[in-house]
Amino acid sequence: MTTVTVLGLGPMGHALAAAFTAADHPTTVWNRTPGKENGLDAAVAATTAEAITASPLVIVCVRDYAVARSILDTDALKGRTLVNLSGGSPEQARAMATWAADHGIDYLDGVIMATTDAIGGPDAALFFSGPADVYETHRSTLAALGENSLHVGDSPGRAAAFDASLQDMLWTSMSGVIHMLALAKAEGIAAADIAAHAKALLGFFPAMIDLLAGQVATANYSGDAGTLHATAATMDHILDAIRAQNLDNGVLAAARAEVQRAIDAGHGEDGFARLAAR
Amino acid sequence: MTTVTVLGLGPMGHALAAAFTAADHPTTVWNRTPGKENGLDAAVAATTAEAITASPLVIVCVRDYAVARSILDTDALKGRTLVNLSGGSPEQARAMATWAADHGIDYLDGVIMATTDAIGGPDAALFFSGPADVYETHRSTLAALGENSLHVGDSPGRAAAFDASLQDMLWTSMSGVIHMLALAKAEGIAAADIAAHAKALLGFFPAMIDLLAGQVATANYSGDAGTLHATAATMDHILDAIRAQNLDNGVLAAARAEVQRAIDAGHGEDGFARLAAR
Repeated sequence: MTTVTVLGLGPMGHALAAAFTAADHPTTVWNRTPGKENGLDAAVAATTAEAITASPLVIVCVRDYAVARSILDTDALKGRTLVNLSGGSPEQARAMATWAADHGIDYLDGVIMATTDAIGGPDAALFFSGPADVYETHRSTLAALGENSLHVGDSPGRAAAFDASLQDMLWTSMSGVIHMLALAKAEGIAAADIAAHAKALLGFFPAMIDLLAGQVATANYSGDAGTLHATAATMDHILDAIRAQNLDNGVLAAARAEVQRAIDAGHGEDGFARLAAR
Repeated sequence: MTTVTVLGLGPMGHALAAAFTAADHPTTVWNRTPGKENGLDAAVAATTAEAITASPLVIVCVRDYAVARSILDTDALKGRTLVNLSGGSPEQARAMATWAADHGIDYLDGVIMATTDAIGGPDAALFFSGPADVYETHRSTLAALGENSLHVGDSPGRAAAFDASLQDMLWTSMSGVIHMLALAKAEGIAAADIAAHAKALLGFFPAMIDLLAGQVATANYSGDAGTLHATAATMDHILDAIRAQNLDNGVLAAARAEVQRAIDAGHGEDGFARLAAR
């Protein structure tokens, strides 16, 4: 089994190391503050250089790319493969790939579409981008982190671009869920009651995503399924309801303002997909 | 079969009238501008008073409550049942119920959780609120509009409150979907590719809704599944990615600002559900 090094033992780094050891990969770990290796059947390195030289495959999972760069020893990494699972933007991933290439380091940028407790299991999806041959070399080892791991492209920023796009949808939607719950609560509706209807409404989301994706792909902004004028009227009703309860309306107000900009630009009879045009 | 009147023949009013006639209810229609009754096997009234006096059950479906009030003839409506399916806020519904009571009109406030083409079919859900006995009298007639119609409470604003809450989630989520598609497009990811992953991510939404609903119901804002500090860091990565592509970031920036206000109030180690507290 391939020897693996994990740098960073926060909750996610710890889960990654545990998944490697559970899959019988000899694992070396390092963390800036010691004592975080509890429960791990792994060798503990005193320095990042020591940790890196222990394995051909080095995983770094720290707060962000700046922290990752600050702890990585380029001399030790030369000729090895670095997989960066720290959070960052596509631009940061591209910059890091350039930095790695400049130092003779094989580099994969990865994102984790899973919570810590899902790591290593069937629900964990990890996306990797970077040279296909580098991914292929380590594919079976990286599969220990999640059965749904996949290589999304050679361009180093691609995994982070998938991640940022999907996280945008996720967190904006979560904001919608929390405002739904806040308004329902203010109106005396039980959280479980509104949640049941919200889950029923989710049944329409796949078709809604496909419709919008198809329109964006073809730059066809037909308002047949509903115009931006109609959306504006609906949003105004919701905003009235939010304001009447003195709740935070910033997120929906921003969405309403974006609709208005499109209307002011002459697109009021187009559909919602128009907002993805530029 | 009960005789029914429909006031307002916009796309939705037209669909409602068509559903009544399809269910063999003798139907009378009226619209401010004539000629909108095409394809309907219905009597066309010249005035709202004529339309109202034709039926014990009067449906009004116009742009908003102000327009509804402006066209309704209170003398003609006295002793009849008015069902208002125009869009509005819970406060407007409560005000309209008071107005109806003052004029001796039985009043149900309703919302339509369906697109026009779903009206009358198995996917159309309509929520009604107002006196249970009034709803019971007209339940079987109103069922012609959608099999999933239900009475959500006696309080007249309750249907509009359900609607505003669910629409808040829906439109905020749609905003998330459109920004996902815009960012993916800017990063060179095909709409169909990101849509496929987005639909997979939807699989986690029911559990996410239940988790947040449970926390809001019990005012338990545990950060065990992720803290607001972590959410802020994730949102910052997404915002970096959006800004790097010069895309509209207003909606997510508003969500980020709301998270910051909670952090500044000392709740950074709480979970996302904290945002529904006040």
